[in-house]
Amino acid sequence: MVVPMLDDGRLVMERQFRYPMHRVMLEFPAGKIDEGEPPFQCAVRELAEETGYRAREWARAGILHNAIAYSDEGIEIWFARGLSHGAARLDAEEFLEIVAHSESEIDALCASGGITDAKTLIGLLWLQKYRAGLWPLVWQPAP
Amino acid sequence: MVVPMLDDGRLVMERQFRYPMHRVMLEFPAGKIDEGEPPFQCAVRELAEETGYRAREWARAGILHNAIAYSDEGIEIWFARGLSHGAARLDAEEFLEIVAHSESEIDALCASGGITDAKTLIGLLWLQKYRAGLWPLVWQPAP
Repeated sequence: MVVPMLDDGRLVMERQFRYPMHRVMLEFPAGKIDEGEPPFQCAVRELAEETGYRAREWARAGILHNAIAYSDEGIEIWFARGLSHGAARLDAEEFLEIVAHSESEIDALCASGGITDAKTLIGLLWLQKYRAGLWPLVWQPAP
Repeated sequence: MVVPMLDDGRLVMERQFRYPMHRVMLEFPAGKIDEGEPPFQCAVRELAEETGYRAREWARAGILHNAIAYSDEGIEIWFARGLSHGAARLDAEEFLEIVAHSESEIDALCASGGITDAKTLIGLLWLQKYRAGLWPLVWQPAP
């Protein structure tokens, strides 16, 4: 997952129809790691493919495990800043709308149940901790 | 999932060996809903069975969806307070240790990667929002 921070402070998100949920979900961008692909490369690739954005700087916040009762699946948590926009290249089966929301809009949606996607809730947690100076991020240039 | 708040402010958690992860994970209590079981009843039952605690008051914070790419699985987020201790009744295949941690200990573990379970990270988010007076909870007596 990538939490992409625009220079104006808003966050890039996706509105995506999720078939298992039978509805559109508002999420931070994410995607599956290709076989053997390093997680950092996957984050850069998925952000570009899904949203068209490239970032000047990246930071790895950590990892979350979303289904420990039956799976070792992990989702890496990355932050991106210094965004510039190019063309998205969606996979054939992906239909999504790219939107930008302020932190306070996302906060209100998480509080009210408008956002229920686990990784996105955790993205908000990390975003607010980072912006409050509580949980540090170490930035590195784009590869 | 239940975020069980002790009267001294600490939170009841579980240290549980998670086979898919090949290691012990620190988590808030949670369990699967029985066929046809109302979520509130499930929360009360799982807290008692896994930890031995009963709560005087309960509040439903919301729901999280942990695997929207391939599942409609949801985890209800409940808070419990006014805790008193009885005997745990674990399922035969459950081996877990009950512990209590302060909010700041949990915060530090989430920041450092010591806690990576998605529901538990979201439990911390809700706990801190609630305690800061930002995300309200509506309390109801135990059934």
